[in-house]
Amino acid sequence: MTDSLDHRLRGAWTPEGADAVELAPKAVRWLRRRIGETTPNDPVAPDSAIAVAPSRIPAKAREELAAIVGPGNLLDDPRERLARSGGLSYLDLLRRRHPAAGIAVPDAVVLPADPEQVQRVLDVCVSHDVGVVPFGGGTSVVGGVTALRGDKDSVLVLDLERLNRLVSVDPVSRIAVLQAGVRGPDAERMLSVHGFTLGHVPQSFERATIGGFAATRSAGQASSGYGRFEDMVAGVRLATPCGEWRLGVAPASAAGPDLRQLAVGSEGTLGVITEVAVRVRPLPETERFEAFAVDGWERGTALVRHLAQRGLLADVTRLSDVDETESSLALAAGWKTTLLRRYLRARGVAEPCLLVLGWYGESGRRRAEVSRSLRAAGAVRLGAAPAHAWLRGRFAGPRQRDALLDLGVCVETLETATHWARIGTLYDRVRMALRDTLGDPLVLCHISHAYETGASLYFTVLTPRDTADPIGQWKRAKRAACEAIVDDRLGTISHHHAVGTDHAPYLEAEVGRIGLDVLAAAKRAVDPTGILNPGKLIG
Amino acid sequence: MTDSLDHRLRGAWTPEGADAVELAPKAVRWLRRRIGETTPNDPVAPDSAIAVAPSRIPAKAREELAAIVGPGNLLDDPRERLARSGGLSYLDLLRRRHPAAGIAVPDAVVLPADPEQVQRVLDVCVSHDVGVVPFGGGTSVVGGVTALRGDKDSVLVLDLERLNRLVSVDPVSRIAVLQAGVRGPDAERMLSVHGFTLGHVPQSFERATIGGFAATRSAGQASSGYGRFEDMVAGVRLATPCGEWRLGVAPASAAGPDLRQLAVGSEGTLGVITEVAVRVRPLPETERFEAFAVDGWERGTALVRHLAQRGLLADVTRLSDVDETESSLALAAGWKTTLLRRYLRARGVAEPCLLVLGWYGESGRRRAEVSRSLRAAGAVRLGAAPAHAWLRGRFAGPRQRDALLDLGVCVETLETATHWARIGTLYDRVRMALRDTLGDPLVLCHISHAYETGASLYFTVLTPRDTADPIGQWKRAKRAACEAIVDDRLGTISHHHAVGTDHAPYLEAEVGRIGLDVLAAAKRAVDPTGILNPGKLIG
Repeated sequence: MTDSLDHRLRGAWTPEGADAVELAPKAVRWLRRRIGETTPNDPVAPDSAIAVAPSRIPAKAREELAAIVGPGNLLDDPRERLARSGGLSYLDLLRRRHPAAGIAVPDAVVLPADPEQVQRVLDVCVSHDVGVVPFGGGTSVVGGVTALRGDKDSVLVLDLERLNRLVSVDPVSRIAVLQAGVRGPDAERMLSVHGFTLGHVPQSFERATIGGFAATRSAGQASSGYGRFEDMVAGVRLATPCGEWRLGVAPASAAGPDLRQLAVGSEGTLGVITEVAVRVRPLPETERFEAFAVDGWERGTALVRHLAQRGLLADVTRLSDVDETESSLALAAGWKTTLLRRYLRARGVAEPCLLVLGWYGESGRRRAEVSRSLRAAGAVRLGAAPAHAWLRGRFAGPRQRDALLDLGVCVETLETATHWARIGTLYDRVRMALRDTLGDPLVLCHISHAYETGASLYFTVLTPRDTADPIGQWKRAKRAACEAIVDDRLGTISHHHAVGTDHAPYLEAEVGRIGLDVLAAAKRAVDPTGILNPGKLIG
Repeated sequence: MTDSLDHRLRGAWTPEGADAVELAPKAVRWLRRRIGETTPNDPVAPDSAIAVAPSRIPAKAREELAAIVGPGNLLDDPRERLARSGGLSYLDLLRRRHPAAGIAVPDAVVLPADPEQVQRVLDVCVSHDVGVVPFGGGTSVVGGVTALRGDKDSVLVLDLERLNRLVSVDPVSRIAVLQAGVRGPDAERMLSVHGFTLGHVPQSFERATIGGFAATRSAGQASSGYGRFEDMVAGVRLATPCGEWRLGVAPASAAGPDLRQLAVGSEGTLGVITEVAVRVRPLPETERFEAFAVDGWERGTALVRHLAQRGLLADVTRLSDVDETESSLALAAGWKTTLLRRYLRARGVAEPCLLVLGWYGESGRRRAEVSRSLRAAGAVRLGAAPAHAWLRGRFAGPRQRDALLDLGVCVETLETATHWARIGTLYDRVRMALRDTLGDPLVLCHISHAYETGASLYFTVLTPRDTADPIGQWKRAKRAACEAIVDDRLGTISHHHAVGTDHAPYLEAEVGRIGLDVLAAAKRAVDPTGILNPGKLIG
């Protein structure tokens, strides 16, 4: 586990072995043209600049924990603790550059080997009143793994990386049981041996874990074909302060409320997910990606809606707005954007919006039907190249942020979803909120998850960093965007990033005071002393 | 509302205007051949034989309720109260024939006009500590609307039949908002004016309501095409003792646990559902039904699994086992069963299992692909007639029970679901439990809801009624079947009938002690004094 320590310490996304992302000079030139000059500043602070207080885990608890997991799996070295002191939001990254802003460092890191050890660790934490932050890939962008203490004197990070096994495969029911710490690529590798795939590929895929996917209601890039992660969950096993909790015996049930859907999305506040039974599918024999240009965002969204409501969505369906399309073309090396734009204009596409479609497995007929719909709507086929460019770079977004931060750019994403009739209003209001608070930022947007009744909107914001108050700059913008989303119950505060600390203030607007009371009551029932992930979800 | 009073008093399912079901002499002969002689007995008790205690609603509460709903909508006439004194399970029907066994009669019936009145009724009930049983179509077969008092001195039935409006239609998002008291046929009629359908057609369709569908996680006969009811729910509005609660702003969300899936299935214990926002679809231009015979139950289930896992399920997909197939043929007038059996045997189908497929809208290609799969598996096409016979009789099942009860038959259904790998074991164990407790009953079974990972099993049990202890006879059989289902977490205690009172003792085996504690905690949060549907779901 310590191989990735330097990456984690830097707050960097890039996993071991993956290429570090350098920004192409052309992309930097384009960006500066769009957002203005930026000043390289705020280098990542050296460890020595970060004050790490001594661990406050009671000695007796430390002893009991070490007896459970083995002394080598209870870490209180400052570097190990620092490396798991939060997620990877822009503010998390910024804090590694401004340590004076405060980093919540856990008192220890515990690495249990299996679900039984997780349960025993919780029992010790209950008896010594130690807070517990469940930790998978550490990729939260909403403060979901920040080591807050709540009312506890000490808090430990429960790192699930040793729970990395494929427990079982039931090829008849097409259900696999995976331990919570299995990362995306490892899940696919282990399932592929049995001829199966999970098909869950979010942007955090390289680092994020099965437990994290479940805890946050993750949605992968192929969600139109494979469903959101909660659609894949056949069952969950959780460790809670009240003991083990198992849910899920059938594909569907009317045995009261679906408690799986309460565990899924509980973000570590109702228990530590230790195993997930997931629906799997045969590995597709082929995959095919293609791209189109649609004229204008409004026509593009109508087209995606049309496909969704006719049951014709490609497994990956991704529509970029005009600015994101321009950015994709500018940042994908080798594109002759001027030529392309002229070509498209001659074909009636004045405001190109890139539509990327991905098909897994046999798709001939569906593709032909979609192509007909797209042609009828005036879309122009761009072939496979832009889709493959997206594919190549699809996990790079988070990694690019480190390079952008070095450049002095304020860069962050936020996302929401709503029903189709309000998608235009939601798009406009979020952009307006960002403009009102950030001056003239570059705001890119895409729809990457579409449903019969609505779709998600995913925004990327780029603007020169306010060197005097970089944290305040983003906090104001984020607050304005969140208020625009929940005002009048216009959209959800998160379509797939979850709540964590950052969205907690807005949850009441979405689920009501009663909704929060119900969540708090459920938490008290399973976690009466409140040791689980203090300060998350219900604030 | 009083038009249906006589039907309700009789405990009969048949709605006004619908044909009363007479059993064909041929069917009666066949049944007696299969289960032995029965003695017509236990006539429905006249009202006068049922002691109805005076209403115990406090005078002050009565006054306040009348002021809210209008005096004509607060009923305490014994007949009106009797008519809403329970659902339509076999035991409910039996109790109308053995009133000495005890009928839980509510103290009053309140008929609010809209969600605001429902909220105000709850407020009065909180202040006077009166129990409230939400009541839609009254078709519960699990004791879900039994007027239990819990720790309350009085209980009223909150009949939602005046909440019968289509509130809004959003044709862009394809979402309609329906009030909770809208019955199945009325929902379809109102939506069809806008060119839409809900596509939710459970056996209780003629009487059951939108609120009831949501409260019980109903599954319709076309669930393979249109989804279960919970899949259709975009949002819910509930009245609770703590005020109004609205959920659902987007097609999908990661804003914590999906609380819609807590409200859906809450069976009136967490609030009174007053409105449901549902996903709708365009009315299909065509529909087509067809039937096949498959050789043997095991091969049949494998075939349905194969279709489900290849995404090829017809919108209605329904496989009967050998006994249910024989019963369908015997009970459907005009069938030359001997000839048919000879015909099938000649084509290699020795143990015919009827497979009914229903397709809504354009289905040519899918049908052709399914036909190829079926032929390859040795299935024999039976044409449309057996499918249309099923269609004609598909709401008659519950109505036939009255005639069967008159004949002296013990007749009830029960259902469950599990993952494919365990479907054979579940089928065997439930049948064994029924045989062990009932001697040699006729047990029919079908799969009517299939998923990638598993399917439902729906059993119909017919046996001569034990005239000495008819209630005990069924209670013992039901207990044995339920224990077989939950033992070793083999299946769910209910796939679509819900929990009510009858399944409450088995819920812990499925969701754990922690699951029950969470439900109880959620209930305390929204209903601190416990007025909502006492004794249901969490017992």
